[in-house]
Amino acid sequence: MSSNSWAPARPPKGAPPVRINLYSDTQTRPTPAMKEAMMRAEMGDEQHGDDPTVWELCDRMAALTGKEAAMFLPSGTMCNVIAILTHCQKGDEVVAHETSHILHSEGGTHAALTGVQIMGLKGARGMFSPDDLRAAIRPKTRYTPPQRLLEIEQTANIGGGAIWSLQTLNELTDIAHEQGWATHMDGARLMNACVSAGIPASDMVAGFDSVWLDFTKGLGAPLGAVLCGSNEFIGQAWRWKQRLGGSMRQGGVCAAACIYALEHNIDRLADDHANAKALARGLAQIEGVVVEDPDTNLVFFDIKATGKSVPQLQETLLKQGIMVSGLGGRVRACLHLDVTAAMIPETVSAIRDALAA
Amino acid sequence: MSSNSWAPARPPKGAPPVRINLYSDTQTRPTPAMKEAMMRAEMGDEQHGDDPTVWELCDRMAALTGKEAAMFLPSGTMCNVIAILTHCQKGDEVVAHETSHILHSEGGTHAALTGVQIMGLKGARGMFSPDDLRAAIRPKTRYTPPQRLLEIEQTANIGGGAIWSLQTLNELTDIAHEQGWATHMDGARLMNACVSAGIPASDMVAGFDSVWLDFTKGLGAPLGAVLCGSNEFIGQAWRWKQRLGGSMRQGGVCAAACIYALEHNIDRLADDHANAKALARGLAQIEGVVVEDPDTNLVFFDIKATGKSVPQLQETLLKQGIMVSGLGGRVRACLHLDVTAAMIPETVSAIRDALAA
Amino acid sequence: MSSNSWAPARPPKGAPPVRINLYSDTQTRPTPAMKEAMMRAEMGDEQHGDDPTVWELCDRMAALTGKEAAMFLPSGTMCNVIAILTHCQKGDEVVAHETSHILHSEGGTHAALTGVQIMGLKGARGMFSPDDLRAAIRPKTRYTPPQRLLEIEQTANIGGGAIWSLQTLNELTDIAHEQGWATHMDGARLMNACVSAGIPASDMVAGFDSVWLDFTKGLGAPLGAVLCGSNEFIGQAWRWKQRLGGSMRQGGVCAAACIYALEHNIDRLADDHANAKALARGLAQIEGVVVEDPDTNLVFFDIKATGKSVPQLQETLLKQGIMVSGLGGRVRACLHLDVTAAMIPETVSAIRDALAA
Amino acid sequence: MSSNSWAPARPPKGAPPVRINLYSDTQTRPTPAMKEAMMRAEMGDEQHGDDPTVWELCDRMAALTGKEAAMFLPSGTMCNVIAILTHCQKGDEVVAHETSHILHSEGGTHAALTGVQIMGLKGARGMFSPDDLRAAIRPKTRYTPPQRLLEIEQTANIGGGAIWSLQTLNELTDIAHEQGWATHMDGARLMNACVSAGIPASDMVAGFDSVWLDFTKGLGAPLGAVLCGSNEFIGQAWRWKQRLGGSMRQGGVCAAACIYALEHNIDRLADDHANAKALARGLAQIEGVVVEDPDTNLVFFDIKATGKSVPQLQETLLKQGIMVSGLGGRVRACLHLDVTAAMIPETVSAIRDALAA
Repeated sequence: MSSNSWAPARPPKGAPPVRINLYSDTQTRPTPAMKEAMMRAEMGDEQHGDDPTVWELCDRMAALTGKEAAMFLPSGTMCNVIAILTHCQKGDEVVAHETSHILHSEGGTHAALTGVQIMGLKGARGMFSPDDLRAAIRPKTRYTPPQRLLEIEQTANIGGGAIWSLQTLNELTDIAHEQGWATHMDGARLMNACVSAGIPASDMVAGFDSVWLDFTKGLGAPLGAVLCGSNEFIGQAWRWKQRLGGSMRQGGVCAAACIYALEHNIDRLADDHANAKALARGLAQIEGVVVEDPDTNLVFFDIKATGKSVPQLQETLLKQGIMVSGLGGRVRACLHLDVTAAMIPETVSAIRDALAA
Repeated sequence: MSSNSWAPARPPKGAPPVRINLYSDTQTRPTPAMKEAMMRAEMGDEQHGDDPTVWELCDRMAALTGKEAAMFLPSGTMCNVIAILTHCQKGDEVVAHETSHILHSEGGTHAALTGVQIMGLKGARGMFSPDDLRAAIRPKTRYTPPQRLLEIEQTANIGGGAIWSLQTLNELTDIAHEQGWATHMDGARLMNACVSAGIPASDMVAGFDSVWLDFTKGLGAPLGAVLCGSNEFIGQAWRWKQRLGGSMRQGGVCAAACIYALEHNIDRLADDHANAKALARGLAQIEGVVVEDPDTNLVFFDIKATGKSVPQLQETLLKQGIMVSGLGGRVRACLHLDVTAAMIPETVSAIRDALAA
Repeated sequence: MSSNSWAPARPPKGAPPVRINLYSDTQTRPTPAMKEAMMRAEMGDEQHGDDPTVWELCDRMAALTGKEAAMFLPSGTMCNVIAILTHCQKGDEVVAHETSHILHSEGGTHAALTGVQIMGLKGARGMFSPDDLRAAIRPKTRYTPPQRLLEIEQTANIGGGAIWSLQTLNELTDIAHEQGWATHMDGARLMNACVSAGIPASDMVAGFDSVWLDFTKGLGAPLGAVLCGSNEFIGQAWRWKQRLGGSMRQGGVCAAACIYALEHNIDRLADDHANAKALARGLAQIEGVVVEDPDTNLVFFDIKATGKSVPQLQETLLKQGIMVSGLGGRVRACLHLDVTAAMIPETVSAIRDALAA
Repeated sequence: MSSNSWAPARPPKGAPPVRINLYSDTQTRPTPAMKEAMMRAEMGDEQHGDDPTVWELCDRMAALTGKEAAMFLPSGTMCNVIAILTHCQKGDEVVAHETSHILHSEGGTHAALTGVQIMGLKGARGMFSPDDLRAAIRPKTRYTPPQRLLEIEQTANIGGGAIWSLQTLNELTDIAHEQGWATHMDGARLMNACVSAGIPASDMVAGFDSVWLDFTKGLGAPLGAVLCGSNEFIGQAWRWKQRLGGSMRQGGVCAAACIYALEHNIDRLADDHANAKALARGLAQIEGVVVEDPDTNLVFFDIKATGKSVPQLQETLLKQGIMVSGLGGRVRACLHLDVTAAMIPETVSAIRDALAA
């Protein structure tokens, strides 16, 4: 690849295997049981409405989120893209947190494809308050971008996997609806929030006109996300699914993995949260490390006081088969179904040694 | 779904099973052997360059098409979308045949997403000549849309699955390159053309800066298409893959089916072509039916002289478990790996009876 | 300017003055009386609704076209841009004639800015029939671009300044409205059609949801066009006027010239039409020249049989101070208020000599 | 107009005349001498390069700003629109101040038309520092929007008409160019900065690839702005001028007013600045009023401590024929060539009385 290529690099030859992968919950691999479910899936042409497994996944997701309808898509980013294309018109403004994924990690796609402007609100832990939102309402003039959509990321990734409380969500969506805006939840890790808070997904997203769930994060499926909303919304969104090339054919083979995940991999997210707590406790013992108390499965910690840089730590750990990521000057360790409780002490110990070296 | 929904309908309850599916080669289902290959696939996070099966598929496709690089995508439509986003800027003009898929069957996506205008050239069987192309070259002024891309569909679907000859392709791409345009092939059914014409894919597409192959048509995979081009092109295209949400995670499970298809399902396209010829011969015997001589796996025929309409024929056949499609006032029967030679006589006979009724 | 510049060239030094300017009716210059009217204009800040002269022009134009409201804009191209931005959304399809100005002479702007696809219908003299339009109606599926707007150019420029009959217009707009489409008239030379056909503008455009008139063509003003439609349409269009930078400040100085043109320069278009007829008659006498019978102020003629090329003729004429334009392989002579009846014999004679040389 | 109309309202009947118009410098009206200059202007068809007065204005502006070329446009907003369309591609990111005009007062047009995202940097008085800019540089990955343009507003309107120092500008543009970004100045009130700082415009904008000046603000012309840059930039920008409908015909009539303004209305901006200082001193004496010290011709003051709201003050003043504007919770008084020194004491007195009432 040339130097201005945006393609990913191939893995370096001879790299040691990653034994403890805390880089991202997107890196989970399907288990043999999940693959069995995929093998057994009944399939058809999804675009023509003929894939029973895709329909089953959509029906289950509509029920889980309390919405009328659902749509299977290849990725979570495409859920955001299609939701914004469906809710907004060019020149509209979306109101979101200033650290949101749609603003920093989707390549400017919403300006590029829908033609929207995103107003980023400030607030600790990736969240803002009802008062913050009220203060962001623009006068409605010919000069101001028309505000059209409130977007919330549950859990807030850069905010440390923080959970927006149900009460805050309800107040925010009430304000948005009073203004005539639509409301959209980026629910990439929605089930982590629901399991941790003990609130059913349908309650958590009751105020949202659209919401999606990613199956390739803590839920462990190889591919896929599901976008949910009203019949009207999903009916319109299908035009964009087609235009983007998100319509698949025998999608049931992948939808089967998602159904398996719904049946087997939700309750166990509590284990990831417990592991995150344990990891945070361990890291807090290391001198110079400042750990944020995790709400869910993401552990963010600051190592500036140790004199080591994030890339230095990453490099040292990688030699031992441990992978973490760096985000906004901090280290992120992500817990998921391929990381067991037994790996936590080793991880803490490796990090302590790396920072002390 | 509400009446203005664009979602596909669910299959009607109690519909008889489709025994002979001539509707589309997109409706093939993965065989047990293909599914075995999927289950054995080694996987990783495709977006991070960690999925060895996706890399293997890309390497094979680059070799097959004689290009430097390749990219795995969820669908053929997305290949067209990304190729046009990468080659063109808003306000540019794409030159294609007036019956092309990008103009009629992709929902206006290229105007919507890239902002290009498509000039549709006339010509029999979905093809135009070098002289037609020369006549379409615009003067370069501030008032004329800047022409930027030649797009060719091989085989030409609405043209009856017709094959553009290698000589014509080379002349066309030479003209385009002289004008400073890029060249793109929609190779949804490229391998049908290559097998029928006995020309290697790398020769067939030598004049094209980008080309893609669909694995969900005659090749029988459940999901996926591969876009090929130079390192520079694919390197830029990755940004759009990310922005559209076409980056997958453990994509290897689907890529494995495509690799299987490359190994097992290409040479056998000749059987589909033979079955198409047989079907055409049979249909030609029916009074009032005008059949186009098939180059590849698509058989188009006109039934106006029989007094029956296309929907009437479709309905009668469907009751007997036979499905065909209607395109541009004609009937289309599509041959593929789920349609055997033994089904041809029954199909001809059913159509004869339906038209005579 | 560099070689890839789209800026116009400066006039060559020492070029002889153009005495008979048949190049375009856009080249008319304001008369002393029109300039007097401009200087007397009462002005204010148009964007703030404070310019009484702009309001007066808009009121007069709303009355002339029988619409509720009107909007002053810097150019006719901007009228088309704003009308399409207001009527359509990205991915929609506009149905127009295949020789229309929006398809060939506006730089691909509608694909670039609105994201629409334009379907170009065939038909003699730049016009199509109700049957042609009916045949162009697409099935409404997720795959087809949603058709949303019928666009008609009155008079049809490339069609030779041809006039769409009132009956045809009414039938076409009825069909469009039955389909739920909006209707838009590019009325750059609408008053030529009205004067020639003896039909009031409000009758001529009764079936159109939006229509604009250009003041810089036969009407002789230096700058400006007015877009008319319902209160709802113009109210929405103002947002796009602002976004494009089409809101002016003391626009009254230019609006005054347009008001002057409405009062003094409409009836006299009949003189241009008589001059066009006279020119056509004269040209028809020249051997090898094929002249189209003019409906209005545009005279198109073909000189292929003379063995001379259009640029050759243009060059010879220019040396004598006569300027004509070339369009689509033909010569176009445009009559307007700076071309008198007395200039016609000289023009015919010069063309005869140039072609004989 | 219907309630969802974005058209401006007509002036209320019987409203008292505005005697002291501090609302905006856009509301100046052309003087008799300026109108004389317009009457005398030699004109031609600007789009065809035939208007000598437009060429003269462009040549003067290129010289004034030290750029190779210039382009006449109907408005300053269109200068921003065209500059961003020319510098950027869809999905790119523009870096600007969080209070900038392009982010809040142009209706979301840059997201809508170019498809860019705007990152708004914080900083007092509408300005940010080189360190702020360095901190805003993103890593270059497939996930981050590609940063492409630095935009600076000189003077900073919402910042109180504040002047960016030449040294800061040079440091900022150096940083941008090191990153491979282009640089664009919104110079709506550039000459106010140049006159106040005593720095020639060509020095002030030396680090900018494009810059524009508005003639309808303090310079007093009825219509027009001029965008300047390299031959390459202006040559490309012409395509967008055409596509947006910003190409005019006999534009010389308006360009003549701009030339007059360059000759007569620049040095006198110092009077507006002196009047602004005097107004600020007077307002500072009023209890409860907090005035920002003006750099140029804009006086912003806060009246919260007086217990009166901005609309209350506006209404009281309007009854006496004095108009001010409200911006971001503050009052703005704008000095310009229709406001004389003699009006300042009356204005201060009227405001004191209004706030005391």
